[in-house]
Amino acid sequence: MNKKIAVLPGDGIGPEVTTVAVNVLQKVAEKFNHQFTFEEGLVGACAIDATGNPFPEATWQLCQSADAILFGAIGHPKYDNDPTATVRPEQGLLAMRKALGLFANIRPVNTFKTLADASPLKREIVEDVDFVVFRELTGGSYFGAKGRSDDRNSAYDTCTYTKEEILRITKLAFEAAGKRRKKVTLVDKANVMETSRLWREVVQQYAGDFPEIELELMFVDNAAMALIQNPRRFDVILTENMFGDILTDEASVITGSLGMLPSASVGSQVALYEPIHGSYPQAAGKNIANPMAAVLSAATLLETSFNLMEEGKAIRNAVEEALEKGFVTVDINPSNNLGTREVGEKICSLI
Amino acid sequence: MNKKIAVLPGDGIGPEVTTVAVNVLQKVAEKFNHQFTFEEGLVGACAIDATGNPFPEATWQLCQSADAILFGAIGHPKYDNDPTATVRPEQGLLAMRKALGLFANIRPVNTFKTLADASPLKREIVEDVDFVVFRELTGGSYFGAKGRSDDRNSAYDTCTYTKEEILRITKLAFEAAGKRRKKVTLVDKANVMETSRLWREVVQQYAGDFPEIELELMFVDNAAMALIQNPRRFDVILTENMFGDILTDEASVITGSLGMLPSASVGSQVALYEPIHGSYPQAAGKNIANPMAAVLSAATLLETSFNLMEEGKAIRNAVEEALEKGFVTVDINPSNNLGTREVGEKICSLI
Ligand SMILES: CC(C)[C@H](C(=O)O)[C@@H](O)C(=O)O
Ligand SMILES: CC(C)[C@H](C(=O)O)[C@@H](O)C(=O)O
Repeated sequence: MNKKIAVLPGDGIGPEVTTVAVNVLQKVAEKFNHQFTFEEGLVGACAIDATGNPFPEATWQLCQSADAILFGAIGHPKYDNDPTATVRPEQGLLAMRKALGLFANIRPVNTFKTLADASPLKREIVEDVDFVVFRELTGGSYFGAKGRSDDRNSAYDTCTYTKEEILRITKLAFEAAGKRRKKVTLVDKANVMETSRLWREVVQQYAGDFPEIELELMFVDNAAMALIQNPRRFDVILTENMFGDILTDEASVITGSLGMLPSASVGSQVALYEPIHGSYPQAAGKNIANPMAAVLSAATLLETSFNLMEEGKAIRNAVEEALEKGFVTVDINPSNNLGTREVGEKICSLI
Repeated sequence: MNKKIAVLPGDGIGPEVTTVAVNVLQKVAEKFNHQFTFEEGLVGACAIDATGNPFPEATWQLCQSADAILFGAIGHPKYDNDPTATVRPEQGLLAMRKALGLFANIRPVNTFKTLADASPLKREIVEDVDFVVFRELTGGSYFGAKGRSDDRNSAYDTCTYTKEEILRITKLAFEAAGKRRKKVTLVDKANVMETSRLWREVVQQYAGDFPEIELELMFVDNAAMALIQNPRRFDVILTENMFGDILTDEASVITGSLGMLPSASVGSQVALYEPIHGSYPQAAGKNIANPMAAVLSAATLLETSFNLMEEGKAIRNAVEEALEKGFVTVDINPSNNLGTREVGEKICSLI
């Protein structure tokens, strides 16, 4: 197979973990006789530094010409505490999602047997957790009208959704549930938000055609509790952009495997794969970041965009084996002295 | 002291736990020689059933004439899954908050020594957790313009904030921090929301006058993680309405003491006190609900609205003693057979 992969390392630990993921993909290409070409693009703070634009035209071109996108992370503290900054790294991420029509962010959350004790939650609560969140990614308050009053004394953000926007991700969520434990939990705030009531309307109507799939309705405040009290109860969670942002991050720490979780953002055209851990600027350049989430993102890329199931499985097995053998970074074993690069080499050698 | 307390039992387990709280207040009145008069009003689903209005005029009159309000909970499942319902119990709660100007919801979250093992989190993470959330309660998407497009194919909600709305709760949060560990964490989504950027502006400016108080800025997704990973890091959390709704509920389960947590909603006039557990309809009428959060809400009422510190302390001590002696409901000790009423009687007898 001959494929072009756009590589967007981004900021913080993005470059380090992406390098490992690319090495792993190269190893897979050798072993399974594929031809992957990698082309790098700028996005985020590094793109602002180089071009003034967090999602430069060239990066957009690159993404459109690619068969899949491997993304690191974006964000830099120098922009975080400055409410007057007019260009922000995050704008690059949001522009990219919008420009590429990446309307569904898919985040599997599962507990790794070898890591159950790393969770802040009790073992009996996190054991065998296995769910996936479908977060809408190109609507809601992220992209609605926003601004200030003329005297700058008040501000507003608008959360908007259309039926079409809700329906297309609902289809993906139900499709996934059909292949899993056949339960979709719609998370919203329908007792307060009109957009949430539209979500309920659309999702309930769609669910009518799938009697074999259980639809559960849950308020977001309740979901924030249930994720901690009984995460095993979830199979597929479906939710809008902002609630998804909060709940996926909450979900990522309950399993104690924040450094292990990949994600896929899909739409009508090319899909994007990224570790969910973010740019983690404090760790940047120190060779201590856990590359496994990026590596598993690469596995998801192979499976989802190229339908290379065996190749994806080879990567997942190598990661599992690395975990079992203790080839892990300090976040997983504080007494370890393997770095990002070394763990990457171990994973490659296990493929 | 001669005081009038408006009692709004509301829905679900609200009436049962409020009855206990009133009994406890009556016991305190006897013991400390006060005169409390209690007058009941309808709010929520029960008010809809009786009057068609979830916050009837009579209840509003009652609240305005009272020195403090003791509230149970509202909400009924028959309204939850019906996106077409035009009158909802929650509207009563929102109307009440708005009409009474209750702009700050104050929720202390602390671990009870005797209950640390009831938490889904590991003991070493939840031990000695002690923070308080200041949630803005009359702004944001809860009260902004919302609606549908003419063809009903799209919906919107508007989140709005003025500088004044932000400033008045910021003052309360800083005041509280000054009496505590001197740290305020502002939780927002300033990398996406314009309203969040206004919050940062106002809060950062205000903080400039209080160099002895540390101001920490945190994105809401990050806060959702930090609450689980290291809840002890928080002292005072300050946040807008919707984020506060999600984070306070998340926070309430980390300590394993959902049935133990009171809250106060304050504004310019009369203040309202309520347990945070909500209406919990599955338990309604079964005499199994934990009344301690309502009882501690009554203690907070005495301390905050009437400045009766000794009386408040007497209630808190009685609750602590009840916990130590095992006079608790099943949520705290599954092998227990004391009901809501019985635990209430025990607490009264310990005062
Ligand atoms: C960086 C930020 C804008 C982004 C988001 O909120 O979507 C991030 O938190 C994420 O979840 O990918
Ligand atoms: C019932 C609901 C409208 C309410 C809210 O979201 O404010 C509740 O969840 C709360 O936190 O008091």
